[in-house]
Amino acid sequence: MASYIEPKILKGFRDFLPAGEIVRKNLLEKIEKSFQSYGFVPIDTPALEYAEILLGKGGGETEKQIYRFKDNGGRDVALRFDLTVPLARFLAEHRNELSFPFKRYHIAKVWRGENTQRGRYREFTQCDVDILGSDSAAADFEILLIMRNTLLAVAKGDVVIHLNHRGLFNRLLDRLELLDASPDILRAVDKFGKTGRDETLKLLSGITGESKAGEILNFIGIKGSFDETLAAMTDAAGSGPESERLKLIRSFMIDAGIADSVVLDPSITRGLDYYTGVVFESFLADLPDIGSVCSGGRYDNLVGLYSKNPLAGVGTSIGIDRLIAALEALGRLDTELSYAQTAIGCVRQAAGGAYQALAEILRKQGIPCEVFLEEDKLSKQFQLAEKKGLRWLIIPDAEDPLSGALTLRDISKRESREGLNMEELIEIFRQKMI
Amino acid sequence: MASYIEPKILKGFRDFLPAGEIVRKNLLEKIEKSFQSYGFVPIDTPALEYAEILLGKGGGETEKQIYRFKDNGGRDVALRFDLTVPLARFLAEHRNELSFPFKRYHIAKVWRGENTQRGRYREFTQCDVDILGSDSAAADFEILLIMRNTLLAVAKGDVVIHLNHRGLFNRLLDRLELLDASPDILRAVDKFGKTGRDETLKLLSGITGESKAGEILNFIGIKGSFDETLAAMTDAAGSGPESERLKLIRSFMIDAGIADSVVLDPSITRGLDYYTGVVFESFLADLPDIGSVCSGGRYDNLVGLYSKNPLAGVGTSIGIDRLIAALEALGRLDTELSYAQTAIGCVRQAAGGAYQALAEILRKQGIPCEVFLEEDKLSKQFQLAEKKGLRWLIIPDAEDPLSGALTLRDISKRESREGLNMEELIEIFRQKMI
Repeated sequence: MASYIEPKILKGFRDFLPAGEIVRKNLLEKIEKSFQSYGFVPIDTPALEYAEILLGKGGGETEKQIYRFKDNGGRDVALRFDLTVPLARFLAEHRNELSFPFKRYHIAKVWRGENTQRGRYREFTQCDVDILGSDSAAADFEILLIMRNTLLAVAKGDVVIHLNHRGLFNRLLDRLELLDASPDILRAVDKFGKTGRDETLKLLSGITGESKAGEILNFIGIKGSFDETLAAMTDAAGSGPESERLKLIRSFMIDAGIADSVVLDPSITRGLDYYTGVVFESFLADLPDIGSVCSGGRYDNLVGLYSKNPLAGVGTSIGIDRLIAALEALGRLDTELSYAQTAIGCVRQAAGGAYQALAEILRKQGIPCEVFLEEDKLSKQFQLAEKKGLRWLIIPDAEDPLSGALTLRDISKRESREGLNMEELIEIFRQKMI
Repeated sequence: MASYIEPKILKGFRDFLPAGEIVRKNLLEKIEKSFQSYGFVPIDTPALEYAEILLGKGGGETEKQIYRFKDNGGRDVALRFDLTVPLARFLAEHRNELSFPFKRYHIAKVWRGENTQRGRYREFTQCDVDILGSDSAAADFEILLIMRNTLLAVAKGDVVIHLNHRGLFNRLLDRLELLDASPDILRAVDKFGKTGRDETLKLLSGITGESKAGEILNFIGIKGSFDETLAAMTDAAGSGPESERLKLIRSFMIDAGIADSVVLDPSITRGLDYYTGVVFESFLADLPDIGSVCSGGRYDNLVGLYSKNPLAGVGTSIGIDRLIAALEALGRLDTELSYAQTAIGCVRQAAGGAYQALAEILRKQGIPCEVFLEEDKLSKQFQLAEKKGLRWLIIPDAEDPLSGALTLRDISKRESREGLNMEELIEIFRQKMI
């Protein structure tokens, strides 16, 4: 008896069947078109790099999660776990070949050996968009705008962006003489939304003492209009370029008519160490509880590990898996089973060449058209068309497929129209497609 | 003194800078649209799989080239080295969720630790298109048609397909009582095009003896029109369903008007073991020497390693790197530096929000538009626009960016037109884009 290998995939990895893959591709295409419409250009980098490049100083969560191994030549290599570190290496390596400010996007897969029990995947797609080599408020604002408009284009509902400035928070910590404990404090504050005030107070008190913990909590709890919030934050932390930056961004928002989409929220800090300026998270107005679907911020220097010339930037990343989950929950996911809505039925096996000739007429008009390959009862072919999600089946004349009259079957209505020619068919498809 | 990590990538891997990545993306998009127009649907599978799944019975070249390692959970895993083996596993696993004939495409990266000295890459993109669950001539023909028309769409020049039938060659070997030596003979014949007749004769003689080697060489050397070649091949090998299949495909080719694009060529055998029916290679008529840019064939059973129920199919794969090299050599590669042809210049830093509002008007009309983020002399901004490959720079009014008159700079002609409004600009772009 033959023995078979069990066909299975690794935990945390996924197969995408056509219906799911079409959804993903459509969404990614819309995102990409949006990035392109702002003049951003794509790059790509290897999936596999020297481990030293990807891990840098190493340590922490990354080292535990990264897929790292020795290749056949004995090199210490690893799969990229994000698109930011490869971008930093890319910029250090190709700086002289690029023009700045450099506006790039990168849509690609990354790999992390994460705990899959939290619903995380070990292989997932990131959509990153960054502006490098500009420290202007105009760059900060452009990233906010691109986030908002890209999400609006795919989410079919309102989007709210929560904005903050990491530097303003640091200014408060400096005033409280807590700058050295900044990483721990940031991590505690980052959990504020999930754990609530009491838990955060306890956590913070352990780091800063109760009185200062109270001041920090008061700061991140500031609420009101953008201007009120900014005034209160500036009062608490002290005035400086951070507040001026936020004021300028606010004036850009008003000029561009998107001020209503952006909330100044002092509780947004982002966990990641490299942010130094504005930070932001975005939420779907109709499903905020699913969390931020697009987050990012400004960093002083991305290339510090590889080059002595610093390079500032600002960028954001769309979490495509969470976005799809949200759109699915909201019933806003366009599901299609096929790009083609039409097929030519197979009435006579020997006429296969003629059927393709018919289909080519439609394809040349920009109308995708499948050809059924197996002669079968028409009722069976109608069933197959339905299963494939097609709207129409064209049934050619049995004797004269190329010039004989055509029948058009509307699959969902279960109706047929006979006696059509190709021009009439094209006209029908054009009208239905609009 | 700080020490830096040298920013470098692994040998055989590539960074794609924007100009190169745009070329690749444009080409892949055209290929994908072509596949979609035939009703093919996309799937995706993990980059990383159990090594046992990917290697199957293992051995040979694959085992030496595959990136294989133990993951953090101690699993024996590997990066996929093609898209065919993952397809086989996918079909065995998801058979009940799919409708057949299943027409799928898969465009994705694969990894092989190949010898890079032959100009091979260790990371490259494959574009595979297959029809599963149909053993009809109509399926064979559809793959030939999709190859031809996809290559025509991207190559802007004639395409020649060389077709053969592996079964007809095996019928000859059977008659010569050489079927057992078939793999070695196929490998020798596969090199015919590169090594020439004398070398192949010597190689074959070592396997089959001189007399039979002569018969094999006579067979693969048969030339003439499709019908003449088929008649001579059938005479030599004996008649059977293989010749009937080729006849039927030939009649389809005539009916669909593509007979001139296909040559029956008994020397095409393809090295790969799993082909059992038709096999084919495609060449650009203007640059045949670069080799086949799209090859494939029919296989009796793809899922044999994972399932007891066989599944026949036919498919092909486009070698995107070779295709790009060929188009570049022919000067037929459209190079663009950006998707946007237009930008808004920055006359006053504080007007950044208004500039984005102007750009949004264009973007909403489907006209990609960048915004320059840094205030600078106009001459410097013209230089930046030129470096970025833009055609136009819009210079807003310094005082009233939103309603003031606009100046349009034609970057290549070094001419400016003043006193325009947004509607006039949109009209100009529409006319230039057509």
